[in-house]
Amino acid sequence: MTILGIDPGYGTIGYGVVRFENFKFTPVQYGAATTKAGMPMHLRLCEIYEDISTLVDTFHPDEVAIEELFFSKNITTGIQVAQARGVILLALAQKGLHPVSYTPNQVKMAVVGYGNAEKKQMMEMTKSILHLTKLPRPDDAADALALAICHGHSRNAIRYEGI
Amino acid sequence: MTILGIDPGYGTIGYGVVRFENFKFTPVQYGAATTKAGMPMHLRLCEIYEDISTLVDTFHPDEVAIEELFFSKNITTGIQVAQARGVILLALAQKGLHPVSYTPNQVKMAVVGYGNAEKKQMMEMTKSILHLTKLPRPDDAADALALAICHGHSRNAIRYEGI
Repeated sequence: MTILGIDPGYGTIGYGVVRFENFKFTPVQYGAATTKAGMPMHLRLCEIYEDISTLVDTFHPDEVAIEELFFSKNITTGIQVAQARGVILLALAQKGLHPVSYTPNQVKMAVVGYGNAEKKQMMEMTKSILHLTKLPRPDDAADALALAICHGHSRNAIRYEGI
Repeated sequence: MTILGIDPGYGTIGYGVVRFENFKFTPVQYGAATTKAGMPMHLRLCEIYEDISTLVDTFHPDEVAIEELFFSKNITTGIQVAQARGVILLALAQKGLHPVSYTPNQVKMAVVGYGNAEKKQMMEMTKSILHLTKLPRPDDAADALALAICHGHSRNAIRYEGI
């Protein structure tokens, strides 16, 4: 199956597409979609909607993992990210997808093995699991790939629990 | 001109449509769109998108006013409201509209005359300005009508400043 991971944002949206077959992950594509600073938010949201729709049309993911939001530092930025996340969820839903949310700690636990892992460790493990020749960049794309891996692991966990 | 006011939410979205001609407001329609509790968020967002698109297609507003968000009490609920607000902004933008945001204090100032006005005073003034025979209900619809009035006043203020 093809899993799409999305790290939501309004300026930079990270995405990572992986194939997951027989308990092995293979990278398909990763990167980041961006919107211009200074552009009115409602127009940036239009671009985000188009970008997500195009991603789905291009890679036909079977399942989608997206990061859960927690606001702690900057509430104003948090509101903007949440607005963008709403548009991303909408674009996915309109394509018939049912995105699954994961917290950063769940992703770290699934990829590195413990919830307090540092970003560098996450990127190293993501590189290793996907047999990449270099660390995935930008950070948002690395996070998105980690989300996709987390979803693959979680699916299996769910399946085992169901036995 | 026709002004659409929107009080954003994910469970209840208040809307108010008013005509504004020669410094006078006339009510056209007001009410609230709702989504079902317990329905997955991405599907609720689809309904919100459809509802806003239908509102625009029905009333053809020239301009739109929407409430700015501030999180203070419940961050989790705030994230959900912001996600819905993002979808509302998107739906409006895709119809060629450029929504203008107002804080609750700006609305109170424009409608009642001071920023610390109570909800009841706001509703009474909204009823009076629009020559309604009863207080507008639900609260979300009343807030949306007040937003539309605020936008009408602000447009004139902007015009005067421009002279």
